[in-house]
Amino acid sequence: MTQANLLEQVKAKKSFLCVGLDADRDRIPKDLIAEPDAIFTFCKRIIEATAPFCVAYKPNIAFFEAYGLEGWKSLEKVMDFLNINHPEIFTIADAKRADIGNTSKRYAKAYFEQLAFDSVTIAPYMGKDSVEPFLEYEDKHAIMLALTSNVGASDFQLLKTGDKSLYEEVIEKSRNWKNANRLMYVVGATKAKALKNIRTLIPDSFLLIPGVGAQGGSLEEVAVNGLNDVCGLLVNSSRGIIYASSGADFDKAAGRVAKELQEQMAFYLEQKGII
Amino acid sequence: MTQANLLEQVKAKKSFLCVGLDADRDRIPKDLIAEPDAIFTFCKRIIEATAPFCVAYKPNIAFFEAYGLEGWKSLEKVMDFLNINHPEIFTIADAKRADIGNTSKRYAKAYFEQLAFDSVTIAPYMGKDSVEPFLEYEDKHAIMLALTSNVGASDFQLLKTGDKSLYEEVIEKSRNWKNANRLMYVVGATKAKALKNIRTLIPDSFLLIPGVGAQGGSLEEVAVNGLNDVCGLLVNSSRGIIYASSGADFDKAAGRVAKELQEQMAFYLEQKGII
Repeated sequence: MTQANLLEQVKAKKSFLCVGLDADRDRIPKDLIAEPDAIFTFCKRIIEATAPFCVAYKPNIAFFEAYGLEGWKSLEKVMDFLNINHPEIFTIADAKRADIGNTSKRYAKAYFEQLAFDSVTIAPYMGKDSVEPFLEYEDKHAIMLALTSNVGASDFQLLKTGDKSLYEEVIEKSRNWKNANRLMYVVGATKAKALKNIRTLIPDSFLLIPGVGAQGGSLEEVAVNGLNDVCGLLVNSSRGIIYASSGADFDKAAGRVAKELQEQMAFYLEQKGII
Repeated sequence: MTQANLLEQVKAKKSFLCVGLDADRDRIPKDLIAEPDAIFTFCKRIIEATAPFCVAYKPNIAFFEAYGLEGWKSLEKVMDFLNINHPEIFTIADAKRADIGNTSKRYAKAYFEQLAFDSVTIAPYMGKDSVEPFLEYEDKHAIMLALTSNVGASDFQLLKTGDKSLYEEVIEKSRNWKNANRLMYVVGATKAKALKNIRTLIPDSFLLIPGVGAQGGSLEEVAVNGLNDVCGLLVNSSRGIIYASSGADFDKAAGRVAKELQEQMAFYLEQKGII
């Protein structure tokens, strides 16, 4: 999917919401657990209830891997369901991969070819040749960690490397990599104030912002500091949406929370003159 | 597996060799491709031929993920085969994972519980709370990227953060994390000279050294600079062993190369007075 296609969706749905699919057998409604593929059914019903309000889905690969072969089967079914029923919605493999070039090529193959995701999240520590294999695919995107939402972000990402922080160095250096126009960046919602600075470094790049909701980030701060002239944001909520209710109405509750977030997002998009 | 068990193996086999299982359908012998599970059969025959000479196996998870569900099935079979037939051999999931705590827990579950690996490689960029979930398992280990073998290592790992390099900061900070005694570190063989410095920072830690062979690292340099009083090294070779021959004799050829490396390692272990 091109970034232009994604922006069309943003305008059509008046939303920059990404729904995170962190499907956890310990948290999905008890009635569902007895079904043959409970994880897939849970994700399918979440998607059906939230698709009108979001522009992206972000399966969290760890939650599928944790169930081994069964988990991988569920992930394939979720991606088939999304690609058949909602080809207009942007998909993100939240995988935080990257390795030497020869190996990164294999991860790119897994997520872009095998599972047909539009994008995959990646970690920058191994540098340029660990990331570029993810940028070789036309109309696919790599979303690189810049400044994350967790406490440990301060361990290394905020270290001073000369007059910059490491996360600024990661952003600036990566702008010169091959096919850098296919790069997007992860910036935690809990770091909303740093967004203003990040927008001066990469005014045009799409940012994926996790951490609104369960992790404590504020949508208003993110929108005010992070929106650019065409939007340029994907704000993710996972647990706040998918576990909005632990009852049989979990999908309806998820739809309600997604709709509330979409309405708030519409307000910020209007305020900015984007819609 | 405890580090003491691993050291017993080192002495018994006079080896600190790790064989990397980067099984690639494009490179395994043509006769094998027709078999129902060629990837598993290839790995099994490599293991049977090399087990007398190595103390660890390192399946490269990307190479399995690239084949989707079939790849995951092969990986499970490889791990079952190893855990049943060679429970004394240390296993490393070369996965380079790490995410926010809640998600890292899931990756730990996937590799330590579901697939029963002894260890998993992890990336440090997200800091302490992204790594500690991997350190909660008794007798399991997390092997964290410090200084890698690829060209891109210089992009960030060698940046100066005050009077240290980022990779030194990663090593030093991590020594204070909970259960840090379960941490090992990845140091590329192509960075053999930095090993001397790393040994002053972490004299007692096990180091996983990839990059000997196809990537150009020298075993001699690694042994001289990296061995500590009890060994403290696992040196990995992947392509140099598993693709030593592209013919029907691939397993015999792999065994021969593994034996040669083991004999060189025995020499360095003796020289150091470890055996």
